[in-house]
Amino acid sequence: MARTLLSRRVVAEAVTHVVDGLIEASLRGVDSHGVHLFPLYMRELDAGRINRQPTMAWHQTKAAGALLDADAGFGHHSGCVAMDRAIAMAIKSGVAFVGVINSNHFGAAACFTLRAARKGLIGFAFTNTDPLMRAFGSTEAFCGTNPICVAAPIASEDPFCLDMATTKVTWNAVGLARESRRPLAAGIAFDQNGQPTLDPEAAEMLAPIGDYKGYGLGLCIEILCGALNGGTFSSEVSEMFGEAKPGRRNICHFLGALDPDAFCGNRLFADRMVSLARQVRALRPESSSTAMLLPGEREGDIQRQREISGIPISLSRWESFLSLDPDFVTAVMTS
Amino acid sequence: MARTLLSRRVVAEAVTHVVDGLIEASLRGVDSHGVHLFPLYMRELDAGRINRQPTMAWHQTKAAGALLDADAGFGHHSGCVAMDRAIAMAIKSGVAFVGVINSNHFGAAACFTLRAARKGLIGFAFTNTDPLMRAFGSTEAFCGTNPICVAAPIASEDPFCLDMATTKVTWNAVGLARESRRPLAAGIAFDQNGQPTLDPEAAEMLAPIGDYKGYGLGLCIEILCGALNGGTFSSEVSEMFGEAKPGRRNICHFLGALDPDAFCGNRLFADRMVSLARQVRALRPESSSTAMLLPGEREGDIQRQREISGIPISLSRWESFLSLDPDFVTAVMTS
Repeated sequence: MARTLLSRRVVAEAVTHVVDGLIEASLRGVDSHGVHLFPLYMRELDAGRINRQPTMAWHQTKAAGALLDADAGFGHHSGCVAMDRAIAMAIKSGVAFVGVINSNHFGAAACFTLRAARKGLIGFAFTNTDPLMRAFGSTEAFCGTNPICVAAPIASEDPFCLDMATTKVTWNAVGLARESRRPLAAGIAFDQNGQPTLDPEAAEMLAPIGDYKGYGLGLCIEILCGALNGGTFSSEVSEMFGEAKPGRRNICHFLGALDPDAFCGNRLFADRMVSLARQVRALRPESSSTAMLLPGEREGDIQRQREISGIPISLSRWESFLSLDPDFVTAVMTS
Repeated sequence: MARTLLSRRVVAEAVTHVVDGLIEASLRGVDSHGVHLFPLYMRELDAGRINRQPTMAWHQTKAAGALLDADAGFGHHSGCVAMDRAIAMAIKSGVAFVGVINSNHFGAAACFTLRAARKGLIGFAFTNTDPLMRAFGSTEAFCGTNPICVAAPIASEDPFCLDMATTKVTWNAVGLARESRRPLAAGIAFDQNGQPTLDPEAAEMLAPIGDYKGYGLGLCIEILCGALNGGTFSSEVSEMFGEAKPGRRNICHFLGALDPDAFCGNRLFADRMVSLARQVRALRPESSSTAMLLPGEREGDIQRQREISGIPISLSRWESFLSLDPDFVTAVMTS
């Protein structure tokens, strides 16, 4: 992948961020946000939606908050740059958040929060996306699948890492149902008129978790990513799968970090996290086959397994990659 | 209420915070978190669970993060003191969060976030509570109803204000079903063995919103309120309705504020919030009788109405107040 990106004159730092981010997501078992996205990103690059050599601009007047104009660079790149700045600021000030405007799809949000957790900090990542969530009380969509991601370090094990859409399922679940021609579960999707549907081909909107609650969380993410940064939200963000369109996507992110040193101190925080993990694991499971896992634990297990076995890709998907980008085999093999 | 509190030697600043907070919640129509709580708070005060004259202690080494030991004072008091510090720090640094340990029930979380929104900032409030949410994959509870509250100013109107439990319903909904002897809706509650129940008398646990997602959000709130501050979580927090017990509750909060001035600037942020509100209101409603409201808008309407009509209290509840605290009539009438 790196060779393909470099051959298209993508700036070297962005290449590292994109390749590492996609591979990490695939290794953690989050296939929808891993290397599967690479052909889509290439089409967006070719159409000029993604800027190969962005001129990023910082606006910072205070110690704990800043704004990054990503100039339509790769989302993984602007997200990593923003999170690294938030981490540095948080180590100094205790807490810091960075808004990002004019960005692109940033893949799995865990890519950024884990950067903070690996340095002993609590990381947060939010992004808006094009409208897909049916607004509560409406037959139209307003928010995207607007994810919330929080990671926190736990001594000697994988970080706690919750990475969740505020919709009941991700758009990828609809895609998988389309591929396998299976009906959707009830209550998760709506057709173009905002009416409930089980037909994945007819699905155009998704249901929020907890009705008005998930919708409210989605709106909070539009405020943090879009409004707070003077950026775009809802239909001002262009569609993910309109990749042939040349217009920029205008996605906005919001990333931040908290340093436990500014609160109870690193040692006590580490003790408390170990205790929390122990208490969760000691809960009585629903059935004898259920293990009480922490968010992020399953992904860590898959990563250790896939680091040995590799990332599985179905033949049909592999062929679809090839038809889109003949460089892909070489790209994956050599990255 | 103020007179009753002062007669019990509660420190004057705490009296103001508690009385204003309870009345504001009642005026906004959030009866479960309003003056209805006053008799409970009095019992907690008399049992020594709430400290009349707490010696609050600050720990602050960085510009944007700090920790407050509330010494078992009223939750409304420690919450207001912490939020006011977070606001002052955020105006200076752009962003700030304050953790609070050894606190008590703080009423409606909106009480604190609205303080930030009224100053033009985005406010956040989280609190842990005693375990009530059935852990995903378990038959036991781990997190409480752990609310998330976010408020943001909108020029010339009520602030955006989302104040939601991470459980599908609050414990108060179970209480109301008990009073009215009506069965609960399916899928919201579990009995002492973690099995689904419709019987409000048997209900001991609540379902999270969005299955593992609401549970994951609940865990994040335990981390932010409890672990990050070296405080307590889950069963280390004592029960709300064990008010006769003398032990302290050890509730922890996490409060913060973001100043738009550190991001896109106050003027552009105000424009974007007005645009967001306009776009939400322009969505096609599900039915002709549905109005597209923003979170907090209904509460603002109720407040304007109740400021004229007063706060309705049922006769049976009024009598139960009297049996608990004969001062209550005088208290409410004179506050």
